[in-house]
Amino acid sequence: MESNGEKAVVSSSENGKSETETAESSSKDGSICGFDSLHHLLQESLSPPLFQEVSRLLLGLNCGKSLETIALPEPAGALSSKHDFDLQAYSFRADKESLRGPRLVRVGLVQNGIALPTTAPFSDQKRAIFQKLTPIIEAAGASGVNIICLQEAWMMPFAFCTREKRWCEFAEPIDGESTEFLQEFARKYNMVIINPILERDIKHGETLWNTAVIIGNHGNIIGKHRKARNAAIANSYFVGSINRVGTEVFPNPFTSGDGKPQHADFGHFYGSSHFSAPDASCTPSLSRYKDGLMVSDLDLNLCRQLKDKWGFRMTARYEMYSYLLARYVKPDFEPQVISDPLLRRST
Amino acid sequence: MESNGEKAVVSSSENGKSETETAESSSKDGSICGFDSLHHLLQESLSPPLFQEVSRLLLGLNCGKSLETIALPEPAGALSSKHDFDLQAYSFRADKESLRGPRLVRVGLVQNGIALPTTAPFSDQKRAIFQKLTPIIEAAGASGVNIICLQEAWMMPFAFCTREKRWCEFAEPIDGESTEFLQEFARKYNMVIINPILERDIKHGETLWNTAVIIGNHGNIIGKHRKARNAAIANSYFVGSINRVGTEVFPNPFTSGDGKPQHADFGHFYGSSHFSAPDASCTPSLSRYKDGLMVSDLDLNLCRQLKDKWGFRMTARYEMYSYLLARYVKPDFEPQVISDPLLRRST
Repeated sequence: MESNGEKAVVSSSENGKSETETAESSSKDGSICGFDSLHHLLQESLSPPLFQEVSRLLLGLNCGKSLETIALPEPAGALSSKHDFDLQAYSFRADKESLRGPRLVRVGLVQNGIALPTTAPFSDQKRAIFQKLTPIIEAAGASGVNIICLQEAWMMPFAFCTREKRWCEFAEPIDGESTEFLQEFARKYNMVIINPILERDIKHGETLWNTAVIIGNHGNIIGKHRKARNAAIANSYFVGSINRVGTEVFPNPFTSGDGKPQHADFGHFYGSSHFSAPDASCTPSLSRYKDGLMVSDLDLNLCRQLKDKWGFRMTARYEMYSYLLARYVKPDFEPQVISDPLLRRST
Repeated sequence: MESNGEKAVVSSSENGKSETETAESSSKDGSICGFDSLHHLLQESLSPPLFQEVSRLLLGLNCGKSLETIALPEPAGALSSKHDFDLQAYSFRADKESLRGPRLVRVGLVQNGIALPTTAPFSDQKRAIFQKLTPIIEAAGASGVNIICLQEAWMMPFAFCTREKRWCEFAEPIDGESTEFLQEFARKYNMVIINPILERDIKHGETLWNTAVIIGNHGNIIGKHRKARNAAIANSYFVGSINRVGTEVFPNPFTSGDGKPQHADFGHFYGSSHFSAPDASCTPSLSRYKDGLMVSDLDLNLCRQLKDKWGFRMTARYEMYSYLLARYVKPDFEPQVISDPLLRRST
């Protein structure tokens, strides 16, 4: 995943996961006015030249051109049709370099809804998600994906909103059954799998963590990461953003602590998973309400090319940030406030 | 501008200022298919319910609602009609609090093109920009703006792209003629002015800086800032982003160092200045090709409300960042690279 300081960051964070909806304008299923994505709404509603311009403004250009789609092998498409999940594939290019060839990595993002009601036995719920994900992961395998990333806490409902402790029963050690389920696919398809689970660290007082387990392409566990999210342009990374889909109804109504009445669901999760590149181009988004697999070829050469173009690391003043942060963490830290000296006179 | 760690950041940075354009899709004047902004293109081309949904996705909601427009006093509108500059005004609300009232500040952003060809005598060019800006600043004054922010290096063409040193003649000390020009308006309208100039620091070896001079509402110089740009959501700030407008043609063709042929202009500057708020809502953008004034009421209470909602400062691990940065700036720093132990075997 990392070499020479260049990375493909694959994130399963779900910032802003549940939109505030105005009751009159949105149907419960997460579509926008019946369309499964903003991209399709605009494509159907605007004339082709207008759509082309609006897409350019919203999605940017990659090396001066619109992103190209990739044709995936037939079995992937067949799985998508049979199991009714969204399937999209794009290619991010980099400029040709003279001292090294393209360094392509094919990455897949998976978004999905839960499979059974949240009231079903927990083991059944988990097993049903495994079953639902199988054809999607098979499609990624058939597509030659090198790294596949599942969504945050993919093996359970997003129950954190209820604040009820019983959902912690879904938690697993990093070598638990969800990891075991995925290790087989890693070996079968020779792919790295980013496996974000609710982790229970038994060796450290049964602590809970929001953890991504990294499974190597031989099925081995390479390591784990306990959640940080990043920005593609500022860091010269690729970012894959996943959001789950569907409305998850919980047995006991709860509040969101916002002064509004209690409710039994957290709003719909609107999917729309996508990739962003260090040159500010991005793919259209997956469906707002269907399970989906987004595949993209990333040429990692683009990372250093954009570092060289912007030179953020040359102009950043790390010494100063280090000095300021060292002061900031001191208990007696006082922020620097520059005020108009005339303010003192007038009061 | 700053109290209790809450700020309205008014930035004049021009990141990504010149779009890569596909020759067939954009006219030289910076319009998109004849429309002066993405907002107007979508408004004219989509049915009202579709437009409402697309706007919600692109602009977000402020306290759960679409941003409201402000009616400005009549003289401001009259100046905008007479001098043909775009004029828009919005209000960012915050939730009602019980221990403090709203803390409103009215802020104006100005975008403008240059006034004379770049081949005119420099002093004439500068004076013509002063003249062109006068009615726009008067409109801000008539609108009761508390803080007005001009664009980066507003007193000259954006000549940095040419790499020619002669344009440095435009540089001024922080109390130079551009500051003097604005001090009068600060006093007349009782407003703070953010004045971003190309600065020549005579006391330190005639160094050049990309500087914002802060002029107090009594016309005094409060201080200066030598350029940093920030993100509204992550920092719980309001951000005002300005981009200039128009195509600036220079006498000597130059290259952009991108392997493409030399050219005499840097592409068109596409305006589109706008405000973003800490709750991820933002205003539509000013025109892509006309001078413009964007006025917004910002309730600074929104800053702390969003800090309390997201708790970034409670969950950030500043001690660890401080430790990591202190290591990073050491000459013998080695990045942490976690690699699959099986990789060693297979090679």
